[in-house]
Amino acid sequence: MALKLYGAAMSTSTSLVLTCLHEKEVDFEFIPVDLFAGEHKQPHFGAKNPFGQVPVLEDGDLTLFESRAITAYITEKYKEPGYDLTRHKKLEEAAMVKVWIEVESQRYNPAIAPIVYQLYVGPLKGVAPDEAIIDTNIEKLRKVLDIYEERLSCSKYLAGDFFSLADLHHLPYTYYLMKTSAASVINERPRVKAWWDDISSRPAFKKVAEGMNFGQK
Amino acid sequence: MALKLYGAAMSTSTSLVLTCLHEKEVDFEFIPVDLFAGEHKQPHFGAKNPFGQVPVLEDGDLTLFESRAITAYITEKYKEPGYDLTRHKKLEEAAMVKVWIEVESQRYNPAIAPIVYQLYVGPLKGVAPDEAIIDTNIEKLRKVLDIYEERLSCSKYLAGDFFSLADLHHLPYTYYLMKTSAASVINERPRVKAWWDDISSRPAFKKVAEGMNFGQK
Repeated sequence: MALKLYGAAMSTSTSLVLTCLHEKEVDFEFIPVDLFAGEHKQPHFGAKNPFGQVPVLEDGDLTLFESRAITAYITEKYKEPGYDLTRHKKLEEAAMVKVWIEVESQRYNPAIAPIVYQLYVGPLKGVAPDEAIIDTNIEKLRKVLDIYEERLSCSKYLAGDFFSLADLHHLPYTYYLMKTSAASVINERPRVKAWWDDISSRPAFKKVAEGMNFGQK
Repeated sequence: MALKLYGAAMSTSTSLVLTCLHEKEVDFEFIPVDLFAGEHKQPHFGAKNPFGQVPVLEDGDLTLFESRAITAYITEKYKEPGYDLTRHKKLEEAAMVKVWIEVESQRYNPAIAPIVYQLYVGPLKGVAPDEAIIDTNIEKLRKVLDIYEERLSCSKYLAGDFFSLADLHHLPYTYYLMKTSAASVINERPRVKAWWDDISSRPAFKKVAEGMNFGQK
């Protein structure tokens, strides 16, 4: 039985899981959830995810939510097909993948998410950007990216000289950031820019990005 | 060669890793980092963690930071000794552990951390609590805990009928919360309260909690 992924193509969390599935070359059925109609807040969806958010992955009787838990499950269950995203054969490399997955989760994402909301998602909904929120978070993101710039002088990708799930987790939000004036924080750091150009040009993500039109139905 | 853990006993991130090490019955050397003297912001510590925060785990030549990545590494490397925190032999149970680890990371922690800072850490430093920040985050935490209360009617612990790393990750911040007036959000939910009494009475955490005196040197 194929995996079932419930989500919305423009959602960053959904596109994270979609990119992982494509990298691992895993068959799945995609079931669109109409966020504009509030389908994710309906009881039938709440039974799948009590937090009422996409994506949800169903694998037989198993129902999973939280995008980073889903990518961890996919890479654990499907170790062999597709690209090795977690370096599961080498404990030390796998550990560094975990470290930089956490850096994305705890440091990069909390800074970039409000910027993307203010500069990209909000305006599409007719909401004016809040400059104070933008400034605070751009400052935070700059500090994180200064550390990335240094890190990328030691290794080609975040966890080492191999593309990994840690890099992959940066794709959806950064893709939207690059459509805004805040793209400069990436463009003005040469190693970060080269890393971004590299990871965003992988076929799996390019395929997913075609569906990433946030704010449009 | 024993693991080396650099940290501070009162730090929530450090006590997370300490609790995991005790549950797994792994030998380690604890190297205190003097946060009050700003030791974590010095260059020699920055070489271990570019984000300048505790804890850091050294295992031979491998240097890891980010507490949740460290507990993932410990439970991956030391599968067998001590308590099985990740249900590594059962893919479905391990997946549910990952889901609830992410719930703590993405939903519980962002709400509880500012409350603990405002009501517990700040006052110890002579900083007056910001009521608006407290109110906003207590409201967020209540919504999360309503879902926990429901979840804990289906299973004894968050990921299933077994204590896991997902429960463990809740210990340090909740321990400090219970010392504040906001403890009511736990106490007024019977299943959450019973869960808290259970997980906080495990010997591994009780040992760690003895050192958790935040704001005191």
